[in-house]
Amino acid sequence: MAEPNSLTAVEMGIDTHQEPVVFLRADSNICRSEGFKANTRIQVQWQDHSIIATLNVVTKAVLPLGKIGFSQIAWRRMGLSGEEQVTICHAPILHSMSAVRKKIYGHELTEQEINDIISDISTHRYSDMQIASFISACAGDRLNIAEITALTRAMVKSGKRLQWHQYTYLYDKHCIGGIPGNRTTPILVAICSAAGLTMPKTSSRAITSPSGTADTMEVLTTVRMSLAEMQETVRHANACLAWGGAINLSPADDLLIHIEHALDLDGEGQLVASVLSKKIAAGSTHALIDIPVGPTAKVRTQHQARHLINMFCKVAAALDLKVRCIITSGEQAIGNGIGPAQEARDILAVLQNHEDAPSDLRERAVFLSAQLMALARNHPHDDVSAYEVQARNILTSGQAWEQFQRICEAQGGLKTIPEARYQLPLCTDHSGTLLAMDNRRLARLAKLAGAPGSPSAGVRLHAKIGTALGEGQPLVTLYANSQGELSYAASYFDNNRDLFMIGEAP
Amino acid sequence: MAEPNSLTAVEMGIDTHQEPVVFLRADSNICRSEGFKANTRIQVQWQDHSIIATLNVVTKAVLPLGKIGFSQIAWRRMGLSGEEQVTICHAPILHSMSAVRKKIYGHELTEQEINDIISDISTHRYSDMQIASFISACAGDRLNIAEITALTRAMVKSGKRLQWHQYTYLYDKHCIGGIPGNRTTPILVAICSAAGLTMPKTSSRAITSPSGTADTMEVLTTVRMSLAEMQETVRHANACLAWGGAINLSPADDLLIHIEHALDLDGEGQLVASVLSKKIAAGSTHALIDIPVGPTAKVRTQHQARHLINMFCKVAAALDLKVRCIITSGEQAIGNGIGPAQEARDILAVLQNHEDAPSDLRERAVFLSAQLMALARNHPHDDVSAYEVQARNILTSGQAWEQFQRICEAQGGLKTIPEARYQLPLCTDHSGTLLAMDNRRLARLAKLAGAPGSPSAGVRLHAKIGTALGEGQPLVTLYANSQGELSYAASYFDNNRDLFMIGEAP
Repeated sequence: MAEPNSLTAVEMGIDTHQEPVVFLRADSNICRSEGFKANTRIQVQWQDHSIIATLNVVTKAVLPLGKIGFSQIAWRRMGLSGEEQVTICHAPILHSMSAVRKKIYGHELTEQEINDIISDISTHRYSDMQIASFISACAGDRLNIAEITALTRAMVKSGKRLQWHQYTYLYDKHCIGGIPGNRTTPILVAICSAAGLTMPKTSSRAITSPSGTADTMEVLTTVRMSLAEMQETVRHANACLAWGGAINLSPADDLLIHIEHALDLDGEGQLVASVLSKKIAAGSTHALIDIPVGPTAKVRTQHQARHLINMFCKVAAALDLKVRCIITSGEQAIGNGIGPAQEARDILAVLQNHEDAPSDLRERAVFLSAQLMALARNHPHDDVSAYEVQARNILTSGQAWEQFQRICEAQGGLKTIPEARYQLPLCTDHSGTLLAMDNRRLARLAKLAGAPGSPSAGVRLHAKIGTALGEGQPLVTLYANSQGELSYAASYFDNNRDLFMIGEAP
Repeated sequence: MAEPNSLTAVEMGIDTHQEPVVFLRADSNICRSEGFKANTRIQVQWQDHSIIATLNVVTKAVLPLGKIGFSQIAWRRMGLSGEEQVTICHAPILHSMSAVRKKIYGHELTEQEINDIISDISTHRYSDMQIASFISACAGDRLNIAEITALTRAMVKSGKRLQWHQYTYLYDKHCIGGIPGNRTTPILVAICSAAGLTMPKTSSRAITSPSGTADTMEVLTTVRMSLAEMQETVRHANACLAWGGAINLSPADDLLIHIEHALDLDGEGQLVASVLSKKIAAGSTHALIDIPVGPTAKVRTQHQARHLINMFCKVAAALDLKVRCIITSGEQAIGNGIGPAQEARDILAVLQNHEDAPSDLRERAVFLSAQLMALARNHPHDDVSAYEVQARNILTSGQAWEQFQRICEAQGGLKTIPEARYQLPLCTDHSGTLLAMDNRRLARLAKLAGAPGSPSAGVRLHAKIGTALGEGQPLVTLYANSQGELSYAASYFDNNRDLFMIGEAP
């Protein structure tokens, strides 16, 4: 027999992103007796599964009486499959929101308070609005080192922590992003693992960029791996290049990142906790962090970069992770390709020592490899020339390419890079020297062409800063899989020609 | 012919509260070519109407191809009626969010920046998440007097500002709330308008409480009035008691308040701007502000109250509004009734000088009336005894009741107060003196019984602090219109008996 407040669950076929939404009839007894209105937070219970969801109230055309609709994420989180009977009530008070309010009022949070917040967020008890409130309260440099450390620790606890018993040291690398095409990781992993560093690398997919390392690697091999498959690959090849999303590392971070992006807010404390929690959860002992600095990069000034490095170092020290932060140039795209397939081509060109391989991508990969090798030996960062020689040798001798193939074979084999159906060269409308490019709008151009959803879509650059260009000369080529995306990207380019600044060389 | 990105609009029958949501098929060309995903912010255009909405992506069961679904608020804001063709694109960048980020980073905002934010919020360009971010950035005493003044001014500008050319001075009254049953406004308006003060009073409905003044007055007469009807009433009766929501005063405030409540965040700057913007938009020149202080009131300490009063006075002075703030006792409910009809009964009992009229409600109404009359004469607040005598005379002589009837007649006539279908006395389980009551849980009890949605539902108190009670004596009576609500409220009382503290008198 149905209990009071018991309703039959149906999946609505509505994707509400990360916030679970449930749907109830406005004229249902339960809405009237419980005082449920649109946006009321509701607890839904089925057996031992329970979620907190936001209510949308609907008319009779949408849902029969006696039923409760679930958005896709709400359905998945409840683990429902058929027309199960669920019970609902008002969501309980979220005690950790008091700590969020305490932070809003400018007070330092205790480790316990931060734990409670992250635990509630990672079990999906916060609405997107509540997460937005927490993020806004913490951004603007309002977290001190102790708080960022506690946040990092709490984020690690929110998910799985990989154990690698047979290895004492595990090496990792991260770039804080913002530079299109800057895909050094696969090359660095090949070089460093060939040099003896064990690198069970996990990477993420793009959130707002045209490609993440996992998207680019997926063009070349399988990246959705279980922990057992990762372990097997590392045993075989001393490294892997996996997508981290499949193994639930720091899931609270993923929820926070999506809201940060929706608000276009890059809290420094949050960034540090995000990066370090993923590294620690992956089991790393040493990590190299690449911080590109440039006028259209994430970090705009040397001063900002040094502030960030100080935070990274102090928090990492508190958590017993050895990090080295390297400031690199972030003034323009790295390599020629932007988008998964285009970047994959550049990576293979570098690894295979092609003549036309982009030298900036190669040099950066060699330099960062040398820095990670130096970190592994506790060698200072200001002179790593000996390690650069070693890294370059590994690359030019073909060892890195062999090592990369070994990794891909262990992950299921090297794939053929897909071709886009359409391409369109976009040309200069006046001659001059390329003086600057806008990383953000260049990324947008590649996304409009279809990257990363369409892996073969993207952009190929034909010039770098300093290149002299004639009028009508190709500046970039667009790659797309539909005429619509191609023309949409082309018209964006026409309206944003100043994303490439072409003028008199100074 | 349909333009590119043109779709047929359909209303979905889904209430998403104040955030407009649109629904698109995941497999539609437009989602793929534009890279639209769940939670993308989209601009929808139809003729000269345009809104920004949040996208929910749906499957084929929900929507045919070529159509775009609208939530109720999105449909209303677009002004759509049939199956019009609308066009969509990515939402433009919201420049005022840079100012929100500036505030998050702790910088003072300029008047222009605050104007831009409020203008974008009031034209519904902000998502709920973005409003939550703004509110969290401003709470915690992070707005200075200049910023609160600018915020108030911007909120006034966001809506209609009533003009009352024929009157030089217009009097207003506001209570910051939190005390169940504290419905002094209708009595005060009757007394003060009888004494010659012109009071075109606009009130709000409940947001989280069991009744707002507009809800209570609606039991007695019509409160949904046009500006012309208000003017006519004031001409006839020197006052009105209208619902402010019908005439679009400070609409930005309404949007902010709902998010503040969802976050359970009471920013002081926001509160001051909210109250004062409504008064200024209504055209008031003088306003009395009642600030109840008590352990379960909104304001808990005298120190907090004085801080708030300082803000009210400084901002009001900058905006040329004369205000007087009065601290009152907020330790328990005022009057006996809680909920629209129950409060209306108390109001009539006081106005009609019934023997059993609640004396606390009467005394508070007389005192506040005296304070407003004193403010009108520029008389200091510390000795208003002469005005108290005048106010009491107006009440006991029956003049206030006559005046109240005159107002209600002009608004469409006095209604009969509705009766609830069910009532249930709730009794003490031990004897003793009533020592304290919890305002918040008492309000919740009345809401569980159905107030204010069901106007006759609510609670009637049979004891005040200091009353000696025997075991099994009625403490409150519940009024409800469904057995479900009655039993739900009763079981809440059983689980929260300590909302009334009964013990040894000290």
